Amino acid sequence: MEMKLPGQEGFEASSAPTNVSAGELDSDVGPGPSPGPGPSPDGPSATESKELGVPKDPLLFIQLNELLGWPQALEWRETGSSSASWLLDMGEMPPITPSTHLHCRWVLFEEKLEVAAGRWSAPHVPTLALPSLQKLRSLLAEGLVLLDCPAQSLLELVEQVTTVESLSPELRGQLQALLLQRPQHYNQTTGTRPCWGSTHPRKASDDEEAPLREQCQNPLRQKLPPGAEAGTVLAGELGFLAQPLGAFVRLRDPVVLGSLAEVSLPSRFFCLLLGPPMLGKGYHEMARAAAVLLSDPQFQWSVRRASNLHDVLAALDAFLEEVTVLPPGRWDPTARIPPPKCLHKRLPSQQRESKGPAVPCLTSAENRHGHDPHAPSPELQRTGRLFGGLFQDVRRKAPWYPSDFLDALHLQCFSAVLYIYLATVTNAITFGGLLGDATDGAQGVMESFLGTAVAGAAFCLMAGQPLTILSSTGPVLVFERLLFSFSRDYSLDYLPFRLWVGIWVATFCLVLVATEASVLVRYFTRFTEEGFCALISLIFIYDAVNKMLNLTHTYPIQKPGSSAYGCLCQYPGPAGNESQWTTTSPKDRDDILSMDLGLINASLLPPPECTRQGGHPRGPGCHTVPDIAFFSLLLFLTSFFFAMALKCVKTSRFFPSVVRRGLSDFSSVLAILLGCGLDAFLGLATPKLMVPREFKPTLPGRGWLVSPFGANHWWWSVAAALPALLLSILIFMDQQITAVILNRVEYRLKKGAGFHLDLFCVALLMLLTSALGLPWYVSATVISLAHMDSLRRESRACAPGELPNFLGIREQRLTGLVVFILTGVSIFLAPVLKFIPMPVLYGIFLYMGVAALSSIQFTKRVKLLLMPAKHQPDLLLLRHVPLTRVHLFTAIQLACLGLLWIIKSTPAAIIFPLMLLGLVGVRKALERVFSPQELLWLDELMPEEDRSIPEKGLESEHSFSGNDSEDSELMYQPKAPEINISVN
Amino acid sequence: MEMKLPGQEGFEASSAPTNVSAGELDSDVGPGPSPGPGPSPDGPSATESKELGVPKDPLLFIQLNELLGWPQALEWRETGSSSASWLLDMGEMPPITPSTHLHCRWVLFEEKLEVAAGRWSAPHVPTLALPSLQKLRSLLAEGLVLLDCPAQSLLELVEQVTTVESLSPELRGQLQALLLQRPQHYNQTTGTRPCWGSTHPRKASDDEEAPLREQCQNPLRQKLPPGAEAGTVLAGELGFLAQPLGAFVRLRDPVVLGSLAEVSLPSRFFCLLLGPPMLGKGYHEMARAAAVLLSDPQFQWSVRRASNLHDVLAALDAFLEEVTVLPPGRWDPTARIPPPKCLHKRLPSQQRESKGPAVPCLTSAENRHGHDPHAPSPELQRTGRLFGGLFQDVRRKAPWYPSDFLDALHLQCFSAVLYIYLATVTNAITFGGLLGDATDGAQGVMESFLGTAVAGAAFCLMAGQPLTILSSTGPVLVFERLLFSFSRDYSLDYLPFRLWVGIWVATFCLVLVATEASVLVRYFTRFTEEGFCALISLIFIYDAVNKMLNLTHTYPIQKPGSSAYGCLCQYPGPAGNESQWTTTSPKDRDDILSMDLGLINASLLPPPECTRQGGHPRGPGCHTVPDIAFFSLLLFLTSFFFAMALKCVKTSRFFPSVVRRGLSDFSSVLAILLGCGLDAFLGLATPKLMVPREFKPTLPGRGWLVSPFGANHWWWSVAAALPALLLSILIFMDQQITAVILNRVEYRLKKGAGFHLDLFCVALLMLLTSALGLPWYVSATVISLAHMDSLRRESRACAPGELPNFLGIREQRLTGLVVFILTGVSIFLAPVLKFIPMPVLYGIFLYMGVAALSSIQFTKRVKLLLMPAKHQPDLLLLRHVPLTRVHLFTAIQLACLGLLWIIKSTPAAIIFPLMLLGLVGVRKALERVFSPQELLWLDELMPEEDRSIPEKGLESEHSFSGNDSEDSELMYQPKAPEINISVN
Repeated sequence: MEMKLPGQEGFEASSAPTNVSAGELDSDVGPGPSPGPGPSPDGPSATESKELGVPKDPLLFIQLNELLGWPQALEWRETGSSSASWLLDMGEMPPITPSTHLHCRWVLFEEKLEVAAGRWSAPHVPTLALPSLQKLRSLLAEGLVLLDCPAQSLLELVEQVTTVESLSPELRGQLQALLLQRPQHYNQTTGTRPCWGSTHPRKASDDEEAPLREQCQNPLRQKLPPGAEAGTVLAGELGFLAQPLGAFVRLRDPVVLGSLAEVSLPSRFFCLLLGPPMLGKGYHEMARAAAVLLSDPQFQWSVRRASNLHDVLAALDAFLEEVTVLPPGRWDPTARIPPPKCLHKRLPSQQRESKGPAVPCLTSAENRHGHDPHAPSPELQRTGRLFGGLFQDVRRKAPWYPSDFLDALHLQCFSAVLYIYLATVTNAITFGGLLGDATDGAQGVMESFLGTAVAGAAFCLMAGQPLTILSSTGPVLVFERLLFSFSRDYSLDYLPFRLWVGIWVATFCLVLVATEASVLVRYFTRFTEEGFCALISLIFIYDAVNKMLNLTHTYPIQKPGSSAYGCLCQYPGPAGNESQWTTTSPKDRDDILSMDLGLINASLLPPPECTRQGGHPRGPGCHTVPDIAFFSLLLFLTSFFFAMALKCVKTSRFFPSVVRRGLSDFSSVLAILLGCGLDAFLGLATPKLMVPREFKPTLPGRGWLVSPFGANHWWWSVAAALPALLLSILIFMDQQITAVILNRVEYRLKKGAGFHLDLFCVALLMLLTSALGLPWYVSATVISLAHMDSLRRESRACAPGELPNFLGIREQRLTGLVVFILTGVSIFLAPVLKFIPMPVLYGIFLYMGVAALSSIQFTKRVKLLLMPAKHQPDLLLLRHVPLTRVHLFTAIQLACLGLLWIIKSTPAAIIFPLMLLGLVGVRKALERVFSPQELLWLDELMPEEDRSIPEKGLESEHSFSGNDSEDSELMYQPKAPEINISVN
Repeated sequence: MEMKLPGQEGFEASSAPTNVSAGELDSDVGPGPSPGPGPSPDGPSATESKELGVPKDPLLFIQLNELLGWPQALEWRETGSSSASWLLDMGEMPPITPSTHLHCRWVLFEEKLEVAAGRWSAPHVPTLALPSLQKLRSLLAEGLVLLDCPAQSLLELVEQVTTVESLSPELRGQLQALLLQRPQHYNQTTGTRPCWGSTHPRKASDDEEAPLREQCQNPLRQKLPPGAEAGTVLAGELGFLAQPLGAFVRLRDPVVLGSLAEVSLPSRFFCLLLGPPMLGKGYHEMARAAAVLLSDPQFQWSVRRASNLHDVLAALDAFLEEVTVLPPGRWDPTARIPPPKCLHKRLPSQQRESKGPAVPCLTSAENRHGHDPHAPSPELQRTGRLFGGLFQDVRRKAPWYPSDFLDALHLQCFSAVLYIYLATVTNAITFGGLLGDATDGAQGVMESFLGTAVAGAAFCLMAGQPLTILSSTGPVLVFERLLFSFSRDYSLDYLPFRLWVGIWVATFCLVLVATEASVLVRYFTRFTEEGFCALISLIFIYDAVNKMLNLTHTYPIQKPGSSAYGCLCQYPGPAGNESQWTTTSPKDRDDILSMDLGLINASLLPPPECTRQGGHPRGPGCHTVPDIAFFSLLLFLTSFFFAMALKCVKTSRFFPSVVRRGLSDFSSVLAILLGCGLDAFLGLATPKLMVPREFKPTLPGRGWLVSPFGANHWWWSVAAALPALLLSILIFMDQQITAVILNRVEYRLKKGAGFHLDLFCVALLMLLTSALGLPWYVSATVISLAHMDSLRRESRACAPGELPNFLGIREQRLTGLVVFILTGVSIFLAPVLKFIPMPVLYGIFLYMGVAALSSIQFTKRVKLLLMPAKHQPDLLLLRHVPLTRVHLFTAIQLACLGLLWIIKSTPAAIIFPLMLLGLVGVRKALERVFSPQELLWLDELMPEEDRSIPEKGLESEHSFSGNDSEDSELMYQPKAPEINISVN
């Protein structure tokens, strides 16, 4: 093999393209596995463009080993530079042998070895000094560039890179010995105490090719994907070198270079930067520059295909063209820039031209912008035939059916089942309690469990979107309460009346399915979703607080003045004025208090014992239960705050991530357990959850099947159509808004949605539950989102600092099914459930409401109202819409919400589903107030406008060149779109 | 004036230094105010080096105005490029007139105008693309550089910069008209809605020199310091230009260039970057590069003194040498880098060489490192004479005495007084309550108020460090409690015994003052401080919780079984078995409950009324007060959490900063008010603060002067010396640790400390308070720090994004004095104070303990124990000390704390001051376990070691070049210092 050795004469050739390195000669020596046959880096060759979609280069792990000597040695080096005397002196002063230390490493981000602390720093964005990049460039231009070097071992490699004219054979030997020396790697596996490998310089004949045990045990090895390659940068100052020695090697066949790399990976690149001592940390910085270059995917791509020095330098220049520059003194250089949340995937320039602009980093807002929001998804295209949508849904989902069960065979599904089961049971308990309250026991916990199990399992088996979890929801609960008070006002037999409402609702829903009404969900923009969601959350919060305060009426607080102290045990005795007690029934408490009992036979036994001994407990004090009100309040607050705190544990710094995730996922269960524990510890007679002791309806004296008419007139079954109409609207909106949220693009669902099929299932279940007197069920947003979240598939992060990529959801039917079967079995949990105090459940309800409310953008915007502009977070929204417009939009939403709340609270409450539908109208009217650009950021666009605006936006986005997308707001000139509208 | 006009021939001369621009010819035309007479930028000239200390250039405000046209216009421009046809077409399409918009502005950081949102972005670190800097360089090299341009108006300036050969006179006229057009500035004062100036193109003869009203009203104007100058960058694409037109102008005399700048500032620099349309946002980016360059202090410094094009380009190259480079695709370009907490002040390179490395950005940890920690401050140098330290203190402080009152004449002092007064009163109330409990009323709220007022005011008048606030402190409270139980065990008359203890303590303290023992505080490292501080905090927390739980014994919770229901009102009636009640005194509650009362004459009247009507309330239920226990707990938790939450408001995004500061500063007061409000609202009989109704000692029957012996034997006055010795140690440590904390270097106190004088004052006050039977007082850390914090002097931030600089503390005696006078007056607040429920005060106590505990580094390290290494914050400490060593240090501190706590809780408690002193010994012993480097980061070094290590550290820090100080941990090689120690 021939090498061009750079010497003095190499200096003037620094940037001339005529300087062809030795590597170029190599390129046709052997048929290497991946060198690009095309010499031009400007366009992909014929073979490459065929596989353009998948030219996946292996991941590169880069490390920087640095040659370090003690300061004395450095001083000494200045005095004498002959290698012989250097070696002799080295022999006399063993501790000052220059030894190689691994100091930094890169996959995507930089990790520094913090020597004193003996640990790797957190991964951070590497920052370089511009001069070091330029110095590196000139060193490489003068130095040795070996592309497709056939070396098979470290020894061969070292021999090749040290074959430089400027070195005497003697010096060369020294240099080789030094380079073959085993580097000291910080060993992570042996514990947190820094542990350094042996430092003795090794002979070249040693077994340097066998990877060390530490190399194999390195935890980084497990993280890197198979096929990963290594790149090593060796740098240092050597007193005996008269001039800098730079070498850049691409190995033809990647080989494990002994213990050179920290991890036993085959090395592809090798870079050597040595030279006489220079001021500052020149070589260290140059070596970091080289490593950062190598870690750049685009440079890597180019240099893997480079055929000569010119290509390498061109790649370096291309890198320089794209760097971002921070002015000096404007930021804190000790601050390490944390890795960004999302990496902009840059394609190599060759590919980029053929593939359009860089793959954008999608936030959910940008997602809607990048994506064409109005190409109606196939699920929502109208077929125009009766039940056409339903048949299409079935046709679309049927092929997936087997895989819906096979895809569930993963450990993750097990934990998802556990989590969602507990959430479902909690929900069933709390809603069961609330429904029992609302309907005077016509429904209860038993019905809630049974209904949840039956309806949920059936839905999971049949539905279009089996990730949905059915549950009682706030709006339906509100409606049920209204319906019950209505039927009580008219002395109706509730369950039969309700049965007819259910029958009508099912009918209406079937009509909606037949007419493919679900395509209208495209009009449910975020405005509608948020209005609905906020209303539900507020209902939760209000109900929880209200129920809690009602407890203080049941268990009144005893104030000093209004004493309810008096209590005694009176026996029917000789004094015989028991009759007085029983005959004169006192009107009110004051009467009792002031009443002179006269001569009685009495004791101070507690009421239960008194009764047992034949006496009568007398006096107001006998029936009061003190301390319950405040203790309930304490339980309520404790469970609420505990659940909130546990939820936050997920993002805290404490505990390993498994523990954090567990604590936060099971926050409500743990909060319930804590509440029960506290209650059991103090043993007070707090109100507990009423659970059925046997498998029968809560309402005494009814069978499971509701009789079709009961005590009602037959015409009530016709009249039920009116409330049913309202309920149908509610069910439709509640169901479909949730479905829209669950089927959002950002969840990357592969098996598609089934809006029509879902509604069809809900209608059928409506019929079933009405007939059995069970609660009504629709999709529940929060718990379904939790279900999907627990089934996220993510790529394993291979590079330190890289965040895992979201791949999609494990779409299957099994987890839901198992959850609901378990829920059904839980009907027999009564002996356990009866220990749950009601205030604890109210606290969990409050928590659910607050959590749901705080998750919507509307809440963020309401918070903005309270923030001075200076302190507002840098939301993309705020960069594009004037603050007053944002506030106006928020104010309108608040007003709508207020109106909904008022309607819900007045006698006209029963029409509130209509008002919900009115939200869509309000949103439509907003188009007269806000410009489409503003609505694009504040909300989504409605289907009509999908022609002019987004295209314009996309077009001008393309017109700007790649990486300064932050300036793209220039396209949103406030005037231009307004003109556009008036034209339309 | 002559101009060199760049044309085609300028291209090859892009970097040759022979290309001398027209500006060079200007440099000797007129005697400008500030041009550097020396032509070489490498070293300061003779005149400049004289004033090297104060060559303060005025602040520069830079703005970028951009010429914008509509896309149609841009398209049109491509078809025809003659200026005549362009103008004609422009006349036909008025809306597409290119108009100048202000788009970015800089003082230190960049602010972008978010056009669509109509607001300025938050200030952020500007990022540039490297190519735009390079393009700018070549444009300037070819272009026009006018240094010391004598133009006096915008018109003159525009005429000068457009006198270019390549432009025809016609084109020049067009260009001038365009440049004289009034730019559209976003007007902040008219509201948040974007408001644009008039867009009509103006004639050159218009009144463009008169600053517009918006310019003067601009809020930025008020922020910029007087003397600030403006720089304007004008950029844009013009179809009629055949080639780029670049001009860089430094005006000889800064003049207000009409409405060019957003703020009516005299302009010093003017940069014009125009050219034919090019791909991407070339001119925008180039203009940003120019603006960032101008905003760089060092470039500014150079360019103000530049005499020719060469100097300007050299300054640009110097800038490039110092930039930091971020590799492409490694960070999110849409993320704006927030301004750093602290700016590294870079001096111009000329000054830098003579002044050493850059002024470092001091964090408190670095501060200790940069600063020589062991040059004993003058306050702590031993004089060797009796009372030498005291005399020196007096001599040092006396000259400041008048200014100690005059310096207080500032509005800030008023709010400081209010804040500290409320804190002091809260403290007096809470400690008064606790002391009353601890001493069975020998001291109480009255004594607490009186003592605080007298001792505090006296201390403020006499002390060496008048910023100190005296207060009862936790350790002294603990000791007092021990002393009281001791004297009770020995049936001593407490106050006389205490008087003797006080006399002895005063004596011992005077001995300590005489022997200058305060110089020993140098041994109180952070280890000691934190141990002490943690103990105090734990005592606070424990006491608060303990007191709260004790309430549940006083007001027991009534469980269902153990009913204390029974209560009746029994009259002495004919049945006459009242005697039975009075004679047979039942042993316990069970007896009463089961007791058959037999035939009685009874009613159910509540106890008070019963007594009034001549009856006897009978039964256990008559004396229980229900609900109090839980309500107290609620009050306790409410006040604690409310105070905690309010404290956090300070760092939240909500509310204007005045409101936030107010809420957080008065958090405890507001929490107390909330608690009182809740309590008053429900009106329950919670235990309230016991306050004296008249001005007399709390203990009945004693005068204000304590009798010297009372009922005690005389020899007790001698025996009192033993506890007094212990108390002296405690007082010394408590006082001096606080003094050390208050006098830390980072507070930049100018008037110096007075350790000896402070201790002397404390000793005298000890004598006084003992004689009057008032509590003992020493410096209280937390409240004193709050005092200092409320008196911080900060520089007004002039540049957006710049954080205000801490200048020092408003050191004076008046605020403290007024606070204590007010406290004295508050003795007459009794009618108000009696409404404060005790649980609220306990809650505040808990808050104080938790707040104090969470403020020390020890707590941070304890938290580290719970964090996986991956999630730990990037503390400097962790970069330099192995995690296991950090944990070991924390564990040792925890063990010490545990030991102290155990001792405090055993009968040996009275010796715990000795154990506190033992902390110093433990810290000494730690030097055998930890290396000095580790201790330097974990703690501070003790005086003995101040020779070798820090110097070594500083030395090697110097050896590295300026700005990559993050790599300086390389100097902390774990081995090197260990060798050093063994040598010592």
